[in-house]
Amino acid sequence: MVQKVLVIGAGISGLTSIKACLEEGLEPTCFESSHDLGGLWRFKEKPEPGRANIYNSVVMNSSKEMTAFSDFPPPAELPNNMHHSDVLQYLRLYTQTFNLLPHIRFQMMVVSVRQRPDFATTGQWEVEAESGQGQRETHVFDAVIVCTGHYTYPHLPLKDFPGIESFDGTYFHSWDYRGAEGLQGKRVVVIGIGNSGGDIAVDISRVAEKVWLSSRKGTWVISRLGQGGIPFDLIDSSRLDMMLYRLFPSWINKMLEKKLNKAFCHQLYGLKPNFGFFAKIPLMNDDLPARIISGRVQVKSNVKEFRGSSVVFVDGSILDKVDVVVFATGYDYGFPFLPPDLQVKCDHRLRLYKHVIPASLTRPTLAVVGFISGLGAISRLAEMQARWATRVLKGLVTLPSEEAMMKDIKKDTDAMNEWFLCSGLNPLYVDVLSYTDCLAEQVGARPNIPWLFLTDPKLALNVFLGPYTPYQYRLTGPGKWVGARQAILSQWDRVLQPFRTRVVPEPEPRSTHGLSIIVVLSGAALLCCFFISKHSSSSVFPLKFPFKF
Amino acid sequence: MVQKVLVIGAGISGLTSIKACLEEGLEPTCFESSHDLGGLWRFKEKPEPGRANIYNSVVMNSSKEMTAFSDFPPPAELPNNMHHSDVLQYLRLYTQTFNLLPHIRFQMMVVSVRQRPDFATTGQWEVEAESGQGQRETHVFDAVIVCTGHYTYPHLPLKDFPGIESFDGTYFHSWDYRGAEGLQGKRVVVIGIGNSGGDIAVDISRVAEKVWLSSRKGTWVISRLGQGGIPFDLIDSSRLDMMLYRLFPSWINKMLEKKLNKAFCHQLYGLKPNFGFFAKIPLMNDDLPARIISGRVQVKSNVKEFRGSSVVFVDGSILDKVDVVVFATGYDYGFPFLPPDLQVKCDHRLRLYKHVIPASLTRPTLAVVGFISGLGAISRLAEMQARWATRVLKGLVTLPSEEAMMKDIKKDTDAMNEWFLCSGLNPLYVDVLSYTDCLAEQVGARPNIPWLFLTDPKLALNVFLGPYTPYQYRLTGPGKWVGARQAILSQWDRVLQPFRTRVVPEPEPRSTHGLSIIVVLSGAALLCCFFISKHSSSSVFPLKFPFKF
Repeated sequence: MVQKVLVIGAGISGLTSIKACLEEGLEPTCFESSHDLGGLWRFKEKPEPGRANIYNSVVMNSSKEMTAFSDFPPPAELPNNMHHSDVLQYLRLYTQTFNLLPHIRFQMMVVSVRQRPDFATTGQWEVEAESGQGQRETHVFDAVIVCTGHYTYPHLPLKDFPGIESFDGTYFHSWDYRGAEGLQGKRVVVIGIGNSGGDIAVDISRVAEKVWLSSRKGTWVISRLGQGGIPFDLIDSSRLDMMLYRLFPSWINKMLEKKLNKAFCHQLYGLKPNFGFFAKIPLMNDDLPARIISGRVQVKSNVKEFRGSSVVFVDGSILDKVDVVVFATGYDYGFPFLPPDLQVKCDHRLRLYKHVIPASLTRPTLAVVGFISGLGAISRLAEMQARWATRVLKGLVTLPSEEAMMKDIKKDTDAMNEWFLCSGLNPLYVDVLSYTDCLAEQVGARPNIPWLFLTDPKLALNVFLGPYTPYQYRLTGPGKWVGARQAILSQWDRVLQPFRTRVVPEPEPRSTHGLSIIVVLSGAALLCCFFISKHSSSSVFPLKFPFKF
Repeated sequence: MVQKVLVIGAGISGLTSIKACLEEGLEPTCFESSHDLGGLWRFKEKPEPGRANIYNSVVMNSSKEMTAFSDFPPPAELPNNMHHSDVLQYLRLYTQTFNLLPHIRFQMMVVSVRQRPDFATTGQWEVEAESGQGQRETHVFDAVIVCTGHYTYPHLPLKDFPGIESFDGTYFHSWDYRGAEGLQGKRVVVIGIGNSGGDIAVDISRVAEKVWLSSRKGTWVISRLGQGGIPFDLIDSSRLDMMLYRLFPSWINKMLEKKLNKAFCHQLYGLKPNFGFFAKIPLMNDDLPARIISGRVQVKSNVKEFRGSSVVFVDGSILDKVDVVVFATGYDYGFPFLPPDLQVKCDHRLRLYKHVIPASLTRPTLAVVGFISGLGAISRLAEMQARWATRVLKGLVTLPSEEAMMKDIKKDTDAMNEWFLCSGLNPLYVDVLSYTDCLAEQVGARPNIPWLFLTDPKLALNVFLGPYTPYQYRLTGPGKWVGARQAILSQWDRVLQPFRTRVVPEPEPRSTHGLSIIVVLSGAALLCCFFISKHSSSSVFPLKFPFKF
């Protein structure tokens, strides 16, 4: 029977995995290679090899209510889109509240995880780890949960850029980037338009002479602010909205793209991608469009080659005197400490059932948690994976046969390839609602909405038509939390609270300027002109902007 | 007869004044106190006392087509919202094209401008100036055009902030601000929410621990991007639009405020001002709302006092351990070199006829150009003032009696106080269209739109319904420019050009996922829910955002 569980890594996934173990009565031990918790979200002044890094300006893309752990609503006063320092504060509070710290051993770098000779009967693992003093220790665990994330190994595809070896300027991967200090007045090319590339380009453009942002495929750009300034991911993100998308993907895609183009025309701005909005993680950036319109950031095509200090783009344009190139080219993933047979990839992916448990294991005592992406925060996905995985470890969720699991993985892969654009760098992308609901179903924590409508219609309406917040998975079943209902009903209060920093008195009504009959008549005539001009075709005279969007 | 004209200052207003003099056959000499042209727009690494300064991240609020001199469209490749370096480049091109440089004497600091004893008959001025070597020179001019701007003397109202004298941190005026270097990890309070305050808060928030932005009255915030990403000031900014506003101010105000609140609710964000959109220069900032939602910038009420390293706000809240305070509290204006009787203020303002010529002069041989503001760029206003002033100097425009001028000034002041919120710091604010048209009328350069409709309807439609660009004032009369028509018809091309940095191939159409009957039926049912939820009152259940905007 599984009792002692090793959790590798004390980032978001690791912490929630420790918590899930405790909830299930298991005995977790977490080995964290650094001296502190937080993983990716612990800002490091200097990049630490073998660890995920962030730059100083990082702000969460998803809002706090959508990012929260399901039984731990963020303090009301935390901002809606948390800075990395706020995220770390939230993680520390979570650790403290659920007393996770005693289960973590810091400065324990896992070197190898191997099946014990008697694995077929015990399912146990022999784990070798290096402590801070350089000493090796060997431990035996009944199960292992791997929470090392996927932003550890910078992907630096130098071979795709002929001439880079003799480039006169300096270059580095976005993993190395901390802030724009030292780049004052420089001419900087940022390659790659993922969220790091966008952030870094905007950051640097505030001090550099100019920044060129090179993109192969373009991207959809969204703002953290939805209508009225409400966090984007709290609007049109209910279960109903997401179900509609599954039913009418083209229609919803079209509507959304129209909305995004209304904010700024992606074709005009040179960013229009050749894929739909939901196919890939969009670029969330509030300032990039304004940096483009002011010429501080110029969007360029893909880089073809380097020549001395010049950069040649595939459209033939050449940029001279480039000082710095930032490769925001993403991350490779890897679990070098795992047995080689578990590292075999198929279609960019490890063969993990439900993206968690290796299908090939004779005993399901190893899980990978948090190695996943979808539209929104990873935290809620990782938490549900951890809750599911611990129940698998305990045997409370029975897995199908290896063959059935492989079939399921194949089905998953096919669906993923149909809906999303996956690649070696972005191997995984799930539909958050259906994936989480599926795991929650097996855990027994999936909210029963028809039943809710009968028993608690107010709550049901919030669950079905309100933002799809993680508290929904604590209403029922194992792990049920009595505070869940209230957490859902009070979620808007926590959204409002951080804005309450300056009280705005109600304004006095402005006086209406008096209107004479002449004014009214001439006004009416002008209004006619106005409406004709706004609604007439602009093809004859380019009075209005001659670009379609 | 006026022949020799002194222009004081070689910024935007000075350059266009030199040009206006040349156009009218006058002999301009420009005394510029620094070693180079550009005035405000020449970025100085270190603030130079007695001169206007900008910080490094400054980007023009108005778009290039609305900022242009009327006979000098900006190069197509310049960005729509120009960085200060682009503005300087444009000014250098203007100087070069119209050969203005030979008329400028650099490092000539004007110390005093005095009427000559025979002023009543000659209208001449005796000007004392200090050259770079510290030598004083005295010159006589037939007329003087003052172009020293209004951002020279920082307004630092320390007496309004008890305790500032013993504040433990450091403080400085926004005039001193260059960039966020040195503010890494600091706790910074920015006082004042004008355009400098907003820009500086956003700038610093990228590196500081946190920034608090203190505002007394709030402000309207607009983005440089209008619908579709087109420069904001090119949309709904035609002559027709502006005439409609004069007729239906409350209605247009309401519409605009609704639109701005749709981008983000100003009440929610603690920014809602107690005045209408057109009453004051709005804050143009593309990133501030996102800095607020992420908590990097927190909006606060006015500062009441300082206590050690703490800042006490009028709402009673106290902020501890403040490292730095930036006073973005605006500028005082002054023309210390002018005769004292011309410096007498009335209702915050000098008594200038049409905001240009002192009404009290027995001979109108002194003009102030560029000491003006309105919604949009000063450049176009200054240019028209210069064109008008030079024709006044030449006697081609006859001024009314002193009494009539004083009456006109009173009328102007009343109108200004009715429409706008003026104060000692913002003494002037004009309605750009009616002010410029009025001067243009007297110059003889106001476009005759009914006549245009009869003779050149295509152009007329562009002038009346298209963006109100400055080229309109070169279609007719003195200073007529043959390129004006083409400049108007090609203005959108110059807007588009700077975006053409990456060619976006037309995307392949996405395949529609097949729909079964069951999908269609359940979809229809869900759609019903969807529309009911979107349109039902949210007062019963807070499903949607419970805040009105």
